[in-house]
Amino acid sequence: MTGVGPARTLVSTELHGSLDDPLLSSMMFLNEITSRFPDAISFAPGRPYEGLFDTDRIPEYLAAYTDHLATERGMSAAEIGTALFQYGRTNGQIHDLIARTVANDEGMLVAPEAIVVTVGAQEGMVLTLRALFAGPRDVLLVSSPCYVGITGAARLLDIEIVPVPEGESGIDPETVAEVAAMVRARGQRPRALYVVPDFANPSGVSMPVPRRHHLLRVAADEDLVVIEDNPYGFFARDDELRPTLRSLDTDGTVVYLGSFAKTCFPGARVGYVLADQRVVHPDGSVTLLADQLAKIKSMLTVNTSSLSQAVIGGILAANGCRLRDANQDTIRFYRENMERLLSLLRHHLSPGLGVAWNTPGGGFFLVLDVPFVADEAALVRSARDHGVLWTPMSSFYPDGGGTHQLRLSCSYVEPDRLDEGVRRLAAFITEATEATEAGATNVQLTRLA
Amino acid sequence: MTGVGPARTLVSTELHGSLDDPLLSSMMFLNEITSRFPDAISFAPGRPYEGLFDTDRIPEYLAAYTDHLATERGMSAAEIGTALFQYGRTNGQIHDLIARTVANDEGMLVAPEAIVVTVGAQEGMVLTLRALFAGPRDVLLVSSPCYVGITGAARLLDIEIVPVPEGESGIDPETVAEVAAMVRARGQRPRALYVVPDFANPSGVSMPVPRRHHLLRVAADEDLVVIEDNPYGFFARDDELRPTLRSLDTDGTVVYLGSFAKTCFPGARVGYVLADQRVVHPDGSVTLLADQLAKIKSMLTVNTSSLSQAVIGGILAANGCRLRDANQDTIRFYRENMERLLSLLRHHLSPGLGVAWNTPGGGFFLVLDVPFVADEAALVRSARDHGVLWTPMSSFYPDGGGTHQLRLSCSYVEPDRLDEGVRRLAAFITEATEATEAGATNVQLTRLA
Repeated sequence: MTGVGPARTLVSTELHGSLDDPLLSSMMFLNEITSRFPDAISFAPGRPYEGLFDTDRIPEYLAAYTDHLATERGMSAAEIGTALFQYGRTNGQIHDLIARTVANDEGMLVAPEAIVVTVGAQEGMVLTLRALFAGPRDVLLVSSPCYVGITGAARLLDIEIVPVPEGESGIDPETVAEVAAMVRARGQRPRALYVVPDFANPSGVSMPVPRRHHLLRVAADEDLVVIEDNPYGFFARDDELRPTLRSLDTDGTVVYLGSFAKTCFPGARVGYVLADQRVVHPDGSVTLLADQLAKIKSMLTVNTSSLSQAVIGGILAANGCRLRDANQDTIRFYRENMERLLSLLRHHLSPGLGVAWNTPGGGFFLVLDVPFVADEAALVRSARDHGVLWTPMSSFYPDGGGTHQLRLSCSYVEPDRLDEGVRRLAAFITEATEATEAGATNVQLTRLA
Repeated sequence: MTGVGPARTLVSTELHGSLDDPLLSSMMFLNEITSRFPDAISFAPGRPYEGLFDTDRIPEYLAAYTDHLATERGMSAAEIGTALFQYGRTNGQIHDLIARTVANDEGMLVAPEAIVVTVGAQEGMVLTLRALFAGPRDVLLVSSPCYVGITGAARLLDIEIVPVPEGESGIDPETVAEVAAMVRARGQRPRALYVVPDFANPSGVSMPVPRRHHLLRVAADEDLVVIEDNPYGFFARDDELRPTLRSLDTDGTVVYLGSFAKTCFPGARVGYVLADQRVVHPDGSVTLLADQLAKIKSMLTVNTSSLSQAVIGGILAANGCRLRDANQDTIRFYRENMERLLSLLRHHLSPGLGVAWNTPGGGFFLVLDVPFVADEAALVRSARDHGVLWTPMSSFYPDGGGTHQLRLSCSYVEPDRLDEGVRRLAAFITEATEATEAGATNVQLTRLA
């Protein structure tokens, strides 16, 4: 750290508590270690593969959007200039294109005015939590393990989370009901449940369709809002269509978080929230939950970048608002990479090693159970000594757990490096297992600063 | 409101309290009324003038940025593609260009790693408040009247604000000390002070240089962090350079919020925070406050749009990181519009009307004192019956006040409509004053829903 100019000292213990939260730090740590070991083969990040996107086409997408505004919305050149230049509608300007896309791709029928365009799905989480959670009585239920984005967002807003253990078929709706009852028994309100039904991050597990229906019934009974996050839904290993919770929802239980990070590109930072729930005010007036989210957004980011909306809007318009079709090459890529990774794990990890893993139906992630402590110190040794990166699962358990698990992502590895990557992983696992057996446990090693 | 699909009913009183905050609603209301009366001449929004920006040049700026990455940072085509496509550094990727720009334009010397690129200055406010405010004991001091963006951000995070009355020369440092002592006396901690020293929104007032030095001394004595927001600093009516608080700060009191909304364009949603304060952790390690803000950002928006950073970075690079020079036409435009507005007010508002106004040293805004209640209902009558828009000042007083004041902005009006605009305003003011004198006060009218 070098500093130019003044440098007042602040004390970290007097800053907001979220800054000391290990879950909040884990994302930063993972980004940092990826940049510290640039030559390592990385099964760590949930980043999308870059090989299928041509950034030179950005001006072309921009033009596709301005053409759309001119021809479909009849906007003049001056009006198009304003759309790109000026502050705009808080809820966003590509809501009509998104409404058509989610109808085409997922059969979700949502009025455009019930859509809020957000700075990625992450802002969607913050908006949704901030609107729904009135005070310390309100509690958020999350799966355990759970995506750190939602637990971090909750931590920033001082929202208490209560974990619901996840099994091979996702969370059990009956357990959700039990946890909700337990929360209520201690005088709090189980306000919402966050869930990724398809190929969850970090576990890779999905919820079977009957369980989805069951979960919706339980949520309605328990007066729980379901916050459905679906960044990986396109990337199934088969061609079976998995209905989103939102598409099965008949009574407005689900607030749906959408992302273009994996289906278009993450640098744009464009996501969206489908929030057509009615909000009744004391004077009897009724608004959409989307309108309430927009109020929050006006104080958080004001608008989502017009340039990003234009480029994503251009991609949607240029593909007839059929993003699943536009993603056929990408879908094939992840499918083949996941198949190859599973095959290589079977090939290189001998049964004698005591390692097991799950076989997700799609997505980016799978989980390995290992006989040693797979913490950040182990990750550093893996990167430094073996040139291979992965993610400690313990980062994803809000209440502890996952100490002997690691997450592998197949999304960011070049196909021709998969074999070498799994070889390195096998070497690291072998060494770590032997070291554990020899009694040199990781817990004795200094935890990485 | 039309709805497709399910529509669960939520009760507004069970949502977060910020959603009922009148300050939070006022920005939305102002946006809405602008769109409801598109033909009105608008002195209402703080939006920048659009006539000087050519959106067709966006691909050119994009190319200027990628050229900069290739030539100055030696990045390959693949690396440039990654910079535009992928998740990136949480703190941003144009921090070096911003460091050079603030050094050239404001004489502020800040290490690039102490800069966080944000989704507009608004996200900068949220990051700074979230990091600095640990809990309910911590209180934010704000000027009164005050920009609604900061009071809204505080409300979202349940941070208590305490107003400091503003005079013709901004806030009085001695009053800041008194308010801080009062806060301390009731067992709370005055943690930070938000201030716009140049051409404040909404009042248009500026702090004289001696008062700036005085404020920094008081803030250091009171252990207050000063959050300086400077969106309008370039737009002085004279050529005198006004030193920012940050440039006068010798002991790290100031966290500086920067914006490109008025000097480049608002649709990009790019701002920045200069935060080179040292943060000491319990283990003795030291980080920059910027690093802590980045942690918060990783859970709020993850990154600022790479496309927006590229276009703003391209504008900076193409202009040798001298944005003040690049803004000469814009500076001249606002200067002339403000002069013309002041001259027209003198011409059209007869002394007999009982109206007075201030004469700001620059910026977008001035304030009229009027003999009637200038509330949202009055604004609706002004728009509907006279075709002229302005902003009720009462929206900007956290603790009430400003009932007989309105804000005029000169930034968004075409120069050739200024005369007609002030004529309409004079007609509205005459009518409203006469109606008040006739006893038909606005308070009896139904407040607009």
